[in-house]
Amino acid sequence: MKNDSDYLNNLRHSCAHLLAKAVLELYPGAHNAIGPSIEHGFYQDFDMGSHVVSESDLPKIEAKMREILPSWTMFQFNEVSFAQAKKLFKHNPYKMELIEEFAGEGKKLLTNNPGDFLDLCKMGHVENPSQELSRFKLLSTAGAYWRGSEKNKMLTRIYGTCFPSQKELDTYILQQKEARKRDHRKLGKELELFLLSPSVGPGFPLYMPKGFMIRRTLEHWLTKEKENRGYQFVWTPHVAKSDLYKQSGHWQKYDAMFSPMKIDDDEYVLKPMNCPHHFQIYNEKPRSYRDLPLRIAENATVYRFEKAGEVNGLLRVRALTQDDSHIFVRHFQISSEIDNIIELTLMIYKTFGFKDFKARISTRDPKNQDKYMGNTKSWDDAENALIDAAKRHKLPHFIGIGEAAFYGPKIDMMVRDAIGREWQLTTCQLDFVQPENFDLCYINEEGKNEKAAVLHVAILGSFDRFFGILIEHYGGAFPLWLAPVQVTLIPIAERHTEYAQKFARDLREQGIRVELDSKNEPMQARIRNNTLQKVPYMGIIGDKEVSASCISVRHRSGVETKGVTLSAFKSQLLEKIEHKV
Amino acid sequence: MKNDSDYLNNLRHSCAHLLAKAVLELYPGAHNAIGPSIEHGFYQDFDMGSHVVSESDLPKIEAKMREILPSWTMFQFNEVSFAQAKKLFKHNPYKMELIEEFAGEGKKLLTNNPGDFLDLCKMGHVENPSQELSRFKLLSTAGAYWRGSEKNKMLTRIYGTCFPSQKELDTYILQQKEARKRDHRKLGKELELFLLSPSVGPGFPLYMPKGFMIRRTLEHWLTKEKENRGYQFVWTPHVAKSDLYKQSGHWQKYDAMFSPMKIDDDEYVLKPMNCPHHFQIYNEKPRSYRDLPLRIAENATVYRFEKAGEVNGLLRVRALTQDDSHIFVRHFQISSEIDNIIELTLMIYKTFGFKDFKARISTRDPKNQDKYMGNTKSWDDAENALIDAAKRHKLPHFIGIGEAAFYGPKIDMMVRDAIGREWQLTTCQLDFVQPENFDLCYINEEGKNEKAAVLHVAILGSFDRFFGILIEHYGGAFPLWLAPVQVTLIPIAERHTEYAQKFARDLREQGIRVELDSKNEPMQARIRNNTLQKVPYMGIIGDKEVSASCISVRHRSGVETKGVTLSAFKSQLLEKIEHKV
Repeated sequence: MKNDSDYLNNLRHSCAHLLAKAVLELYPGAHNAIGPSIEHGFYQDFDMGSHVVSESDLPKIEAKMREILPSWTMFQFNEVSFAQAKKLFKHNPYKMELIEEFAGEGKKLLTNNPGDFLDLCKMGHVENPSQELSRFKLLSTAGAYWRGSEKNKMLTRIYGTCFPSQKELDTYILQQKEARKRDHRKLGKELELFLLSPSVGPGFPLYMPKGFMIRRTLEHWLTKEKENRGYQFVWTPHVAKSDLYKQSGHWQKYDAMFSPMKIDDDEYVLKPMNCPHHFQIYNEKPRSYRDLPLRIAENATVYRFEKAGEVNGLLRVRALTQDDSHIFVRHFQISSEIDNIIELTLMIYKTFGFKDFKARISTRDPKNQDKYMGNTKSWDDAENALIDAAKRHKLPHFIGIGEAAFYGPKIDMMVRDAIGREWQLTTCQLDFVQPENFDLCYINEEGKNEKAAVLHVAILGSFDRFFGILIEHYGGAFPLWLAPVQVTLIPIAERHTEYAQKFARDLREQGIRVELDSKNEPMQARIRNNTLQKVPYMGIIGDKEVSASCISVRHRSGVETKGVTLSAFKSQLLEKIEHKV
Repeated sequence: MKNDSDYLNNLRHSCAHLLAKAVLELYPGAHNAIGPSIEHGFYQDFDMGSHVVSESDLPKIEAKMREILPSWTMFQFNEVSFAQAKKLFKHNPYKMELIEEFAGEGKKLLTNNPGDFLDLCKMGHVENPSQELSRFKLLSTAGAYWRGSEKNKMLTRIYGTCFPSQKELDTYILQQKEARKRDHRKLGKELELFLLSPSVGPGFPLYMPKGFMIRRTLEHWLTKEKENRGYQFVWTPHVAKSDLYKQSGHWQKYDAMFSPMKIDDDEYVLKPMNCPHHFQIYNEKPRSYRDLPLRIAENATVYRFEKAGEVNGLLRVRALTQDDSHIFVRHFQISSEIDNIIELTLMIYKTFGFKDFKARISTRDPKNQDKYMGNTKSWDDAENALIDAAKRHKLPHFIGIGEAAFYGPKIDMMVRDAIGREWQLTTCQLDFVQPENFDLCYINEEGKNEKAAVLHVAILGSFDRFFGILIEHYGGAFPLWLAPVQVTLIPIAERHTEYAQKFARDLREQGIRVELDSKNEPMQARIRNNTLQKVPYMGIIGDKEVSASCISVRHRSGVETKGVTLSAFKSQLLEKIEHKV
């Protein structure tokens, strides 16, 4: 019980209160704004008044928290009237704004009082704070606009985390340290993979040649695997009339669409999804039962609004290229098609060494039926089909109530990377609603019209996010088949350059990505640079190598093998590339 | 002299007057609006009043034109005052609008009077209309909004053409007839290559699986050829802050940008060009003289506004994917880099059998210097570099005065297709201006900053337009390497299906795109369908073929070869694909 997500949320949210209390005691005149639990921890926002707080102040604040903690034996809640609330919080403009808002929405106004600290609050808390909150750590500070809007004041956000046990906390801190080393934004810059240009805009990364080489290699491989499984690739533009999204319901139900633009007298939007485009392709000609399952795929860039403060390198972007597909099936084909998708998914995970994963089956929120389109029977059938598939494949799985898309339930795969962090990757959504909206029919054996069902599938999710995850998973040391430069040849002196050039040409003819580093620097410096660039293999060429028609092969790990012939090296490389190791 | 473009323009514009005269005589109450010469002919717009004119009326109008023509011995011009002009044209609201406008702009008001017909006019005319205008033909009718705006009245547009000789007219009419058969919009639908969806919007084509297979095949091939020549591929998003285009000058000088949209508090636009994005990539790290020439390439979709009435299938679109590249060079590298570009271009033309082409070298319009950025010296150097390159390669070429982009002169290649029509394809623009705008520098041998020059190059132009041209060039019968389905296997009876499936698997393993047509239809019907679909090869399989372990190979031309073994067929196909025939 202690590890379930409700408990963790309560624990961390409680700890955010403790942080607020400590800061308000240490810095008179500071005001706390909001302090929610988030994935892996919590934060608390402060208007620091005349004070400035930075990461070097965190130990002092932690010490104050530990000093206060023993006195926090329990949280007391009181419902208060609008007038009482306004009186209690009259010095805190952020709480005052929330009080007005809560009251306006008809919400109850609750205060809690742990120890001698009063706060306006609407979330759950732990029962014995003095005991349960002791395994905490403050992590970092950042600027954050009040309510996420650049129009408001910039507040100081302090991040922290709290775990039920010291062991869990220690593991997390170690993982964070490792994660910082592997930060894809840091590695992305060092390895020249991508860039974020303020002139282009936040959330719109640009891929440098090396980054795009990796992304394209992923894309070509996945495309081939899909084609081998009967997927057909299409291309659709990045905009459409907003009417198309009114027909699909995205306009009404999906909140991350960009604002529209006017072309002629029509309203157009950047596409947030490809489904309506692919439905146009499906409906371009009459379809027969013989055509199904029809698997339409596209590696397509879609545009989704994320707040400027929430975009993050490649992991959270405004322009994302999905490995998207829409599979049109007859109802009795759903199970076997989901089997095909799971087969492909597991093959792909294996390629990257992802062994620890579980399926989340996202269903409706029964308390919030307005969020969804379609009838109850279809939803029940769809939810059951997904649960059955997970059971059939013995996938570890759990139910995510209320996580479904507005048009149907889905399976999402949660995958742990090399340092134990969990990422949501593959998504497979089952949809009986859009076939109604777009009249997606086929002629059955009796010559009658029947509605198809649609599976929305993205195996990697988006190439951008997946690439970001891979950078961190591999710590930038990509396996040979993905490495943008697979081999660097290093002629020791100028007289070895010609031999190196010929060697490079021979490797290049086999499609191996090879560079020649004949910079005017000592050999050791060039080895160091290429190792830092995480090039899998270096080929060192000196007098001995030239006279014996071979090279010395040095792996980026430092292991060196002397006297390797061209043909041996070539076949070794090609075999590794072929097997993706 | 008689064939030069000024003469042709005068001839056709004069013929448009003749058309106007005939229509106004035949249909009392009709008004003529404008009647310019266009590529390959002319048109004249009419407000037909209570009349309706369609293509079946064209012979009658032609007859009237021939009846009038002998009396048109010469054009008389008179300059008239504003008041006189308004009196002369008081019944024609379109001319009245033009009179107001010309007067407002301070232009002279001229009337011309051939025979007994008065018209407001500002263009050149032929000297002896009665003799020179006789080789004309009316071609078609269409609706067209007055001044191209949907807010105005829909007029009737009559298209026609006129040539200096009967032979040229006959050739053109024959070519047009052939072009109609090859119309890429018609073939695009029949062969399931692409679609135009009113729900997505005009000018935004969607590619069906077969069309995208061709486009992708082109793209992968061209990408490989460029990589072999040292180009490095990148990816950039489809939007950017409008400030980026203010820096590049597109905002001020380029008139086909879409209207902006608001994200956060910034103004963003769909990118009409990739240059500013690629400059961000160039500027991401310090560049050394050793890095140049640096060839950045992207197969990138850009968005350009075209009027809804002017979009045309794949040939004129609002979303176009360019085979774009920006080559950053030192000034002394310009010539050799242009040589490389011409070599690549000619190799590509040869692949498609384009043998008849000429280079247009576009220079400044000396009368309109405001259109351009940069200083005179740079422009002179750049224009001379391009002219020298054309001479060095002995390319047939001519100068297009005033056709330059705002940042530099360019070479465009004009290419004739299989039925003799001329298309503008490759463009290579030399640019000394953007390096100033974006401070595109490199460190030279002495450790000092120098400005690079930029070559903007697209070999095919855009994949969309080039694909549209290829559809018409090949009349839909794509060469084997491009054909979306390369082979269809046709088992004569159900008992031959298993053998056909095995045969198909073997071909597919070699990467050959093969389909099995085991529809419940007679063999002859299936051969007919696949021939209409222009599948290069059909493999017919009956009892004889199964027992002899072979197939009968039928080419779409009808030529059939019996008793072909799998291995012979396979190697024949692979060789043709490899050599792109």
